[in-house]
Amino acid sequence: MEFTFLGTSAGTPTRSRNVSGLALCRAGPKPWYLVDCGEGTQHQLLRSRYSLMQLRAIFITHIHGDHTFGLPGLLTSASMLGRTAPLAIIAPAQVQRFLNSAIENSDSSLNYPLNFIDSEARDFHWQDEHFQVTSVALSHRVPCRAYVFTEQNLERQLLQDRLRAEGVEPGPEWGELQKGNDVTLQNGRLLRSDDYTHIPRAARRMVVAGDNDSPELLNDVCSTSHVLIHEATYTQDVADRVGPWPQHSSARQVARFAQQARVPNLVLTHFSSRYQSGAGGAPHINQLAAEAMQHYRGQLFLARDFDSYRLEKDLSLSCLTASPAGS
Amino acid sequence: MEFTFLGTSAGTPTRSRNVSGLALCRAGPKPWYLVDCGEGTQHQLLRSRYSLMQLRAIFITHIHGDHTFGLPGLLTSASMLGRTAPLAIIAPAQVQRFLNSAIENSDSSLNYPLNFIDSEARDFHWQDEHFQVTSVALSHRVPCRAYVFTEQNLERQLLQDRLRAEGVEPGPEWGELQKGNDVTLQNGRLLRSDDYTHIPRAARRMVVAGDNDSPELLNDVCSTSHVLIHEATYTQDVADRVGPWPQHSSARQVARFAQQARVPNLVLTHFSSRYQSGAGGAPHINQLAAEAMQHYRGQLFLARDFDSYRLEKDLSLSCLTASPAGS
Repeated sequence: MEFTFLGTSAGTPTRSRNVSGLALCRAGPKPWYLVDCGEGTQHQLLRSRYSLMQLRAIFITHIHGDHTFGLPGLLTSASMLGRTAPLAIIAPAQVQRFLNSAIENSDSSLNYPLNFIDSEARDFHWQDEHFQVTSVALSHRVPCRAYVFTEQNLERQLLQDRLRAEGVEPGPEWGELQKGNDVTLQNGRLLRSDDYTHIPRAARRMVVAGDNDSPELLNDVCSTSHVLIHEATYTQDVADRVGPWPQHSSARQVARFAQQARVPNLVLTHFSSRYQSGAGGAPHINQLAAEAMQHYRGQLFLARDFDSYRLEKDLSLSCLTASPAGS
Repeated sequence: MEFTFLGTSAGTPTRSRNVSGLALCRAGPKPWYLVDCGEGTQHQLLRSRYSLMQLRAIFITHIHGDHTFGLPGLLTSASMLGRTAPLAIIAPAQVQRFLNSAIENSDSSLNYPLNFIDSEARDFHWQDEHFQVTSVALSHRVPCRAYVFTEQNLERQLLQDRLRAEGVEPGPEWGELQKGNDVTLQNGRLLRSDDYTHIPRAARRMVVAGDNDSPELLNDVCSTSHVLIHEATYTQDVADRVGPWPQHSSARQVARFAQQARVPNLVLTHFSSRYQSGAGGAPHINQLAAEAMQHYRGQLFLARDFDSYRLEKDLSLSCLTASPAGS
C-alpha cells in the first residue's frame, strides 16, 4: 500500500503546503483513491504519478472548503481530458449539493457518471477488489469521518497436501480455490476455498482521519491498524490559546492517544499555516514534531506535500522521500 | 498601470500554466483588481506581490469553471486571513448562486460583505477613484464580457497664468482646483476645475476580454484603447479541426482583427493545454506567436504565468519579465 500527500495545510494554502488531499493505492496507481480534495488538488496531481483517468473513488471526510473546493475543477478536468469511467464519491450529502450547483452554474457537464454514496449513512460501507472501507465518526464542528482502508483479496497459498490427501489432483480447481472461489467437483462435492487455502499474512490496514478534536474515538479501530494519519493543527500551547471552538487536535493530544492505542506508525498532517519550515519569526513546523515525540514512542512522521509512503506486506512503513521525524 | 497574469491556460491547468486569472492595478498593488478567478488563483497570488487584503473588486468575464472555480477558496481564505473590507464582485448572476451554494454547503462564512453587481445588466458600469470600467458583450457559448479599464482622476496641471490674470492668488483654492474640485470664492464666484486646469496626457485604457469567437465585437472600443488582452486558444489549423462549437478564437483571427483595429499592443492568452513550451511531440506555444506575427504589426506578447506588464503614462507597454514575441 502506498500513499502520497497532496496537501498538508489547514484552512488556507501556503507557498509550500496545499490544503488537504491524500492519494492512496494498493499496488501501483491503477486504480487509486483520493481522500479529501481541497482547492488545487488537480494541480498537485499534475506533479504526481496519479492520473485522473485511473481514479476509482473520492472519499470526503467533511464538508469544509479546504477539503472540498477542489472537486468541481478536478471532476470537470477529468471529463475534458477524456474520462468516461464512473467515479464514486463518498461524501456528506451537502457535497453533492455543492457539486450540482457548481456544475449547473458553470455550464459544465461530465462525460462520466458520478456515483454518490452518503458517508454519513448509518450503514456506510464501501469496497472494491482491493479495499474494504469503513468509517468512524469523529468530533468536529460539522459531521466528520475517519476512513479505514483494509486491503482484501490477499494472496492465498494452496494447502496442497490436504487437497492431494483428499484426492483432489492439480487442475483448474486448484486455480479457482487459490483465487478464493469455492469449487463444485463433478461428483457434486463442494470445496470451500477457505478450507483449502491459507493466507500467510495479515491484511494491511490504515486509518485516514478527518478533522477531529477527540482522537480517542479511534481507539477501537486503531488497535488493529498499522498506520494512523491524523491532523495535528496546533501545538498544545497554541491550541490552549485558540480555545476549543475550531475543534482540532494538538500534536500532544494525538501523540498521547497513539501511544496509548499502540499504533505502530503515526503520520501527522493538516498543520496551521502559522507553522513554517524556514527561518524567520514564524513558529517552526519542528515544534509539532518535538511535542509529539515527547509522548509517542512509535514511528512518527510529519507529512509534507508530495511525500510518498509505503506500507509493506511485513507491516513496516517507510517514507520514500524523507526520514522519520527525529531520526 | 500594471497587470500580472496568474493563469494563461484554457480549460484545464498544466504544470506551467494555471487557468484564467489576471491581477491589475493602477499604481502599486493597493488597491488591485482581479479579472477572472480560475481554481488555484489564490495559490498563484501567494507567489505574487498582490495581497487578498488589498483586493478591491473581482470581475468575472463568464461562468465557465476555468474562470470561476477559484472564487470560493479565495474568498474564504481572505476571511480566514482577517479581511473585513467589502469586496465587489462583478459577475453574471449564476456566479452568485454558485458562491452562495459553496459557502452554505461548506459551513463557511465571510467576515466581510460581498457586493454583487450583475455584469450582464444593460446599464453595467463600475468605477472607483482609479478606474472607470465598462464592458462589451462578446460571442461565446455562454454570455461573456470584455472589461474596459480606463484610468480616471488623472493628474491636473494648474493654469497658473490664467488664475493670476483673473486675480486668484496662490492659496487653498489652487489645491482644490488641482484635485479636480470646483471652488466657490468668498465673493461668491464659482471656479470650475476644468476651466483652470489642464490634463497633460491621455487616460490609459486597456481591454481585458473573456472567451470570444468574434474579436470584431471589440472594434469600437479598441479604436481608443492602448492594450488588448484577448484569448487565442488555438492556431488556425487546430481551430478548423476542432470546429466552431467551443466558440474560441485562433491566433490568426485575433491578430488580423488587432491589425485592422490598429491596437498598438496585443497580449494573447488562454492557450489550449495542447500547446507546450518544452521539447517533445506536443505542438509548441511558439506556433501561436508565429501565426499571430504574420498578421499583426503592432507589439505582440504571448502571456506566461507570472509575467508582469507595465503600461506607462506615455502609452508604451513593456513586459517586466520577458521580451516581446519575435524580438
